[in-house]
Amino acid sequence: MDYSRVFAQAIDRLHAEGRYRVFIDILRNKGAFPNARCFAGHNGPKPITVWCSNDYLAMGQHPKVIAAMEEALHDVGAGSGGTRNIGGNTHYHIDLEHELADLHGKEAALLFTSGYVSNEATLSTIAKLLPGCIIFSDELNHASMIAGIRNSGCEKRVFRHNDLQHLEELLAAEDEGVPKLIAFESVYSMDGDIAPIHAICDLADKYNALTYLDEVHAVGMYGTRGGGISERDECANRLTIVEGTLGKAFGVMGGYIATDRTIVDVIRSYAPGFIFTTSLSPVLVAGALASVRHLKGSCEERDGQQAAAARLKAMFDAAGLPVMDSTTHIVPLMVGDPVKAKKISDILLAEYGVYVQPINYPTVPRGTERLRFTPGPAHDEAMMRDLTAALCEIWGRLELRLAA
Amino acid sequence: MDYSRVFAQAIDRLHAEGRYRVFIDILRNKGAFPNARCFAGHNGPKPITVWCSNDYLAMGQHPKVIAAMEEALHDVGAGSGGTRNIGGNTHYHIDLEHELADLHGKEAALLFTSGYVSNEATLSTIAKLLPGCIIFSDELNHASMIAGIRNSGCEKRVFRHNDLQHLEELLAAEDEGVPKLIAFESVYSMDGDIAPIHAICDLADKYNALTYLDEVHAVGMYGTRGGGISERDECANRLTIVEGTLGKAFGVMGGYIATDRTIVDVIRSYAPGFIFTTSLSPVLVAGALASVRHLKGSCEERDGQQAAAARLKAMFDAAGLPVMDSTTHIVPLMVGDPVKAKKISDILLAEYGVYVQPINYPTVPRGTERLRFTPGPAHDEAMMRDLTAALCEIWGRLELRLAA
Repeated sequence: MDYSRVFAQAIDRLHAEGRYRVFIDILRNKGAFPNARCFAGHNGPKPITVWCSNDYLAMGQHPKVIAAMEEALHDVGAGSGGTRNIGGNTHYHIDLEHELADLHGKEAALLFTSGYVSNEATLSTIAKLLPGCIIFSDELNHASMIAGIRNSGCEKRVFRHNDLQHLEELLAAEDEGVPKLIAFESVYSMDGDIAPIHAICDLADKYNALTYLDEVHAVGMYGTRGGGISERDECANRLTIVEGTLGKAFGVMGGYIATDRTIVDVIRSYAPGFIFTTSLSPVLVAGALASVRHLKGSCEERDGQQAAAARLKAMFDAAGLPVMDSTTHIVPLMVGDPVKAKKISDILLAEYGVYVQPINYPTVPRGTERLRFTPGPAHDEAMMRDLTAALCEIWGRLELRLAA
Repeated sequence: MDYSRVFAQAIDRLHAEGRYRVFIDILRNKGAFPNARCFAGHNGPKPITVWCSNDYLAMGQHPKVIAAMEEALHDVGAGSGGTRNIGGNTHYHIDLEHELADLHGKEAALLFTSGYVSNEATLSTIAKLLPGCIIFSDELNHASMIAGIRNSGCEKRVFRHNDLQHLEELLAAEDEGVPKLIAFESVYSMDGDIAPIHAICDLADKYNALTYLDEVHAVGMYGTRGGGISERDECANRLTIVEGTLGKAFGVMGGYIATDRTIVDVIRSYAPGFIFTTSLSPVLVAGALASVRHLKGSCEERDGQQAAAARLKAMFDAAGLPVMDSTTHIVPLMVGDPVKAKKISDILLAEYGVYVQPINYPTVPRGTERLRFTPGPAHDEAMMRDLTAALCEIWGRLELRLAA
């Protein structure tokens, strides 16, 4: 067995498909986001504009968040020093869980080290506890949900994206007494479309299924308090579990679920991905707490983001660029080829100081490779004009397809 | 299907076995560790001494770590804003990976959001890429390694703890051409014993197996630069992959692997648990960088910890307390019953202001429930005398077994 050869071949496959990824070496400039510095391939830092951050509302730079983190750092130190059960539970964790439960109108919440871990740990554990459970999963669900479903060892039925009829067919085909769980997202982050949550809850009621909603690309950004699409659509109370992240609109790091007290108790007691890991640093928890609290009371960031997204979509549209049909803050431009997507991104960075990452397989299906822009409240009109002009020039240079 | 009943029953089982866990609500006092404040069940914070932190060297309170985190917080903000591939790669991440590669004398390193994730993601991915791979796993391996092995879908052979003869029997029984991976730990954190790394590497050479060593309870604490037991025993160069954590002796949060360039490239390109998650906050990375650098040059913390552990073991021993046979910094006291272990812990907290968590199943096998003390450089002799006296009083009160 020549191990090195096997590993080298695995890398060669990525190069051959044009989807070998290179990390872009950047540092953001606090207080001046989306401006940043890029290190890679240049002599010294070069200024760039970031167009692909998931710090959607620039809360990672908000003075209240920074101040809260600084205070925690000086009050209790860097890390938690242990798991939640053994030495790593702090008063900050408890406060934030209360705040998140309240945000979603649920009895309780539970923190995880990331959104990925919250999905993997919760889905794999809850389904394992329900003998014979079948999970109904939207075909575009995130990799972390897929991992949780796979690791649960349960049967899985994949329904076509946001297709209620297909979901009902699959539900109706199973025995009434079998435990069922419907797992889906509110905002699908690579397409920018939204699930029909109420209608899915209607099906869950009809077929006695639990529901699990991933709101990571919606919390902080939708609803009058930032409770996500389930708050905006007034259906949080109909969902069994709402899952969210602290690492995108809230600007920090970590993940969570909000649900009833018993389910939180079950997950914290049985999920290896929760039990056997050092808890979130209290510094991060303090920052997230400040961020969640701020966005509960302020709509300025949300409104600014929606306005920026609408403006950028309109500009792309007017320029004939193939902007995808998104109903949210996410602005994807279809390219359809991994090599070209990377080429556009490389030119933008090298020649225009614009940083936007190509999105290739396995993040999106092959043949739907794209550029994904996430304009926020701090991206101004001049930046958008420059970006649109740059894209038009590159589209022409590479002879890419314009919108139909 | 009555879901609530199933979940309630799952919780009832924990109560019936006496292993339902309650989070202890604490805040550490920066600069005064192991002193902390406890909130639960008291009117206002009550001062306590922490005896079960994995911030083994109190680096989470070190001025250099705090200063580095503060600087990063003000330079770039709270979170990274994205995955390593999409907007969340920073110069701090790259610097820390270089530092960790150097620490273990490897070509490259890769950061993860936790030690748990680094084990799960690396083991599941590497084994999946090797067709027909068989993983040889020590029976006391951590839950995160077990999760990674299970999620790889590979065949697994479990060898008796640190038993070279058994490991060789299992290796010899398999076909020569089959890919093999031996996964083990250096310091086993609940018993405090150490693996015979050189001898395991001899077997790996003989049977052409890869090796994966979890050093989470050793990095920072062993070796002249804190490179772990593999540095102390001068065998890092014989190991395929060394895995470590930033959340224990380094005092912050996060995990990593150090290995050759190709394997890092493979893992970062294929592991869902690496690809699809927001990267570590640059604030944490900056703190970890300062901590790793400091412990490369300073032996004071390591020496202080070893002296404290030796002193506490000697005191327990002299008092006739059933201290387990640990050759490391970990000081476990055998109780052998989950209800009694919890009872001792409760009395210590309520009556003596001593915080040590009972360690019950599934963290340790049933029947081996214990208290696990982690004395560090900041636990002084007076604290140890008070602790020993308290334990002797409780041991008498509860009529517990003394050492043979």
